[in-house]
Amino acid sequence: MLKRFSISLEQDLLSSFDKLIREEGYTNRSEAIRDLIRNTMVQREWLDGDAETAGVAVLVYDHHRQELSQKLTDLQHKDHGFITSTLHIHLDEHNCLEVIVLQGKARKIQSIADSLISIKGVKHGRFISTTTGKDFL
Amino acid sequence: MLKRFSISLEQDLLSSFDKLIREEGYTNRSEAIRDLIRNTMVQREWLDGDAETAGVAVLVYDHHRQELSQKLTDLQHKDHGFITSTLHIHLDEHNCLEVIVLQGKARKIQSIADSLISIKGVKHGRFISTTTGKDFL
Amino acid sequence: MLKRFSISLEQDLLSSFDKLIREEGYTNRSEAIRDLIRNTMVQREWLDGDAETAGVAVLVYDHHRQELSQKLTDLQHKDHGFITSTLHIHLDEHNCLEVIVLQGKARKIQSIADSLISIKGVKHGRFISTTTGKDFL
Amino acid sequence: MLKRFSISLEQDLLSSFDKLIREEGYTNRSEAIRDLIRNTMVQREWLDGDAETAGVAVLVYDHHRQELSQKLTDLQHKDHGFITSTLHIHLDEHNCLEVIVLQGKARKIQSIADSLISIKGVKHGRFISTTTGKDFL
Repeated sequence: MLKRFSISLEQDLLSSFDKLIREEGYTNRSEAIRDLIRNTMVQREWLDGDAETAGVAVLVYDHHRQELSQKLTDLQHKDHGFITSTLHIHLDEHNCLEVIVLQGKARKIQSIADSLISIKGVKHGRFISTTTGKDFL
Repeated sequence: MLKRFSISLEQDLLSSFDKLIREEGYTNRSEAIRDLIRNTMVQREWLDGDAETAGVAVLVYDHHRQELSQKLTDLQHKDHGFITSTLHIHLDEHNCLEVIVLQGKARKIQSIADSLISIKGVKHGRFISTTTGKDFL
Repeated sequence: MLKRFSISLEQDLLSSFDKLIREEGYTNRSEAIRDLIRNTMVQREWLDGDAETAGVAVLVYDHHRQELSQKLTDLQHKDHGFITSTLHIHLDEHNCLEVIVLQGKARKIQSIADSLISIKGVKHGRFISTTTGKDFL
Repeated sequence: MLKRFSISLEQDLLSSFDKLIREEGYTNRSEAIRDLIRNTMVQREWLDGDAETAGVAVLVYDHHRQELSQKLTDLQHKDHGFITSTLHIHLDEHNCLEVIVLQGKARKIQSIADSLISIKGVKHGRFISTTTGKDFL
């Protein structure tokens, strides 16, 4: 159920904000503000280590390093209950980008992502926290 | 080619750092420091809007909203030269998580990600900047 | 001049948001949303290196290291047109915390802050970007 | 006591890193890497809400708003055990920048900073976590 309420904002600030969100592709102000609010809520959700949530680990590595691919596969199987899915992309002859989607308690999936990123040979690794969307229906 | 060099650090700080990286899964100090350095370089790469790089957009949305799926597909085809691959996961009956891998100039792929995240109905969207790994061989 | 407009939000999301902002000390929703919007605008302002803005560098260092205090003072005088004010706090027998307020073009004050943070002997340095408030009247 | 150890890095990555840190004002590689490590440790320190630490709140507001100045003063006195010092700068006829240095348990000073930032009339507020430096001697 949607709830409607009103807020007030300085005219100048509102004009600048409208200009910015148009550039970012928003078609209306309400949607842009909803996104600011949702981002805040997702950040908060992640402060609770026990919250059931979702995240994505992104790794860039050289696939010629056999022991690395092996370790990645091992780790992913060990934690298969938390790893939902994996996408592998060949960036060039040497480099791969691997996207690993994780679901589970915030603390646990952060820890799995740490293990993945710290594997020797991973050139760049980042973890992005998101949400299962359940509390945002 | 690897180059070896030495650095000095306060004993106490080094002990704390060693403890931390062990928890994160690193097997040696050198690899942990390499990751800190690589992160710094990737952040820097992204300050140059014209750098050829890679990124990942993560969207959580309700797939029942037809117009959203349609718009996502349209946008992805319009920018298909930049969108390398997409992974779609059914989180539950309502919610999907979509991972979209982007390659191209930093400025351009950031702008595509903005458009994706700002689509009406996306509950949570984030963009993660990474690298093609080319300058980190 | 204040402008009033309305937005709509899912009931559940709104309840969670209301709970969160109450914890943070906000007395009304409008003010919390204004802050989200202002944060977004300040972040944007900083993407333009030529914007006239303000920032704060925070340094923690051991004041027994003479050459450090000297270098800090030198740097601050060299860039005195940009350094508005400085606050120095004795944390304990060894450690000082120094707060340096900077005003000027975003690019320039970021660069001065980099120089301050990188002085040998600074234990921890961070730079916080803020605003002169002029565009937020 | 300083401890010396060696690490190895890809030649190309090292060259790029050397170039970057020179631009930021570092005179040697060791100091730049120490800063990366210290930043990591400070971030970690802040994950423990009970750690004794330091932080800085930066507020920009219009000093004509009497009730705001009053509330700021009240709050600061209420929490005077945690507020070490305050620096006030007149940015222009209307706008002030106030820097408030906080010391105490991470959780407590974060909460005080939230209260300060959420005061009605604060145009922009940010909180920066730093350290007392005690564990980095």
